[in-house]
Amino acid sequence: MTDPLSTWKEGAVKDAILGYVEQTCTEGSASWVPAEERVAVFDNDGTLWCEKPMPIQLDFILRRFIEMAEADASLRDRQPWKAAHERDYGFLARVMDEHYAGDDTNVKTVGAGIVAAFANITVDAFEDQAASFLHDARHPTLERGYLECAYAPMVELLAHLRANGFANYIASGGGRDFMRPISQEVYGIPREGVIGSAVALAYTPDEHGGAITRQMAADYLDDGPAKPVHIWTRTGRRPVLAAGNSNGDIEMLDFTQHQDKPSLRLLVLHDDAEREFDYVSGSERALDRAASSGWTVVSIKNDWAKVF
Amino acid sequence: MTDPLSTWKEGAVKDAILGYVEQTCTEGSASWVPAEERVAVFDNDGTLWCEKPMPIQLDFILRRFIEMAEADASLRDRQPWKAAHERDYGFLARVMDEHYAGDDTNVKTVGAGIVAAFANITVDAFEDQAASFLHDARHPTLERGYLECAYAPMVELLAHLRANGFANYIASGGGRDFMRPISQEVYGIPREGVIGSAVALAYTPDEHGGAITRQMAADYLDDGPAKPVHIWTRTGRRPVLAAGNSNGDIEMLDFTQHQDKPSLRLLVLHDDAEREFDYVSGSERALDRAASSGWTVVSIKNDWAKVF
Repeated sequence: MTDPLSTWKEGAVKDAILGYVEQTCTEGSASWVPAEERVAVFDNDGTLWCEKPMPIQLDFILRRFIEMAEADASLRDRQPWKAAHERDYGFLARVMDEHYAGDDTNVKTVGAGIVAAFANITVDAFEDQAASFLHDARHPTLERGYLECAYAPMVELLAHLRANGFANYIASGGGRDFMRPISQEVYGIPREGVIGSAVALAYTPDEHGGAITRQMAADYLDDGPAKPVHIWTRTGRRPVLAAGNSNGDIEMLDFTQHQDKPSLRLLVLHDDAEREFDYVSGSERALDRAASSGWTVVSIKNDWAKVF
Repeated sequence: MTDPLSTWKEGAVKDAILGYVEQTCTEGSASWVPAEERVAVFDNDGTLWCEKPMPIQLDFILRRFIEMAEADASLRDRQPWKAAHERDYGFLARVMDEHYAGDDTNVKTVGAGIVAAFANITVDAFEDQAASFLHDARHPTLERGYLECAYAPMVELLAHLRANGFANYIASGGGRDFMRPISQEVYGIPREGVIGSAVALAYTPDEHGGAITRQMAADYLDDGPAKPVHIWTRTGRRPVLAAGNSNGDIEMLDFTQHQDKPSLRLLVLHDDAEREFDYVSGSERALDRAASSGWTVVSIKNDWAKVF
């Protein structure tokens, strides 16, 4: 038999995953889970694909800011366009530092800029922009296109779960409509399986079936306690398997437990500076919870035979 | 070969449906639609099941109002509990009349009552209440349980579509979490296929995986122009087949058209006082649009061999 997780190194983590899938899918096993309850949820940035030196969607947004500032000089004195136009990447780092220090003034400025950057275009036009970027743009340091920044072991895990009757969903803080054009191609996850942050949308009728247009307002940010809510909203179920990597995934991982059936919670640890990146910033609480709650920590360095 | 639509009378409407499914599912046909694009959306009240003399969910809500007023005397002087407690069904009729006349004062009163009636309970507790009601309560005049008020021809159509690779969704003004407990059993539509109105939800952590609780606020009403938006939000696609029965379905039916592939739009006409009900109130504009836009009108009297 071929190894369904050939990109994973032999060891306790690989055994835990294979064992979990086998026990939940063996009818008659005490741990059997009916197929319709095999719901698996995955964070995207840092869990399914690379999020350093910046989330892929942030690169997409910054390029749009630059484009807007080039077209309209009046934006060059206003944040966040000013920082993008001047290639002042330190500005975004400072915004995050301020955020962690409790000051969200600039976070709101950036958020308003993001919403404005793609407002008043149809979801189809946005999708074309996202798809073009994702297919054409390259990672700044890894010497590969962005779509090749998906982690091969996670893509293999998704396929193994799918082959065993699991329904895979992406529950990401990233934009739902940003990921949808590539979710099938990269992850084998159909468009309806993508849960993520969203802007407000509106329907405008016309003679050809009308259009759905992005509004100048956020709908919701799918992070932290919003993840269980949107997983429920979309699937109507509590998952049995979840994978994340950061503090924003804690509630999703917590939600993934049942009184009457086993669950598997995976936390990806970025500890491989040579092949990917080495960081715990933004994941400290999640790592503490993994240790105290028995979540399975996946070390990129020790558990993955290849990364991409 | 067995007739996949045996509960439909022979005629133009049955031929249109069978022809549409055959042409879209025949590879090589000019009208072929790839399986992943075969998205079909259905209104529920008045399209998949009976909505007279009142929507089934309204009966559920009124019983809850009565229960609340019995438990708390102070509610008996306040609308909407007063009307429910006094079995003043005329109150609701007047509210609807006022609504159509442009006065939504009482609509807001009723809406606030509905939100309050099931607030601060978990989605699991709400689901238990909805499931019990739907399995136990009986239709006031049709001499059958509510779950037997689903239209047999529509259930057969859903099965025929499913057998041909269509993904069926319920896009209803009714509550998503009210329909989910019975959607598989009654319609063969899994929980994740139910789109509908929703209240705001919140996640509260605890040591056993936390809980999702209904809040004292609406999230959105899935009616009119909100239907295309939530169909997109959930499926990421523009449907190829839609069925509705009222003015609230116009935008959904309009949205269901493509430049490059055929679509089928069905409008159920309630014209059978003997076997079901005979009414056009609330559907006048939709019937006009059916005539001018070439939607297929399904006459219960003439097109259905049996109703239930």
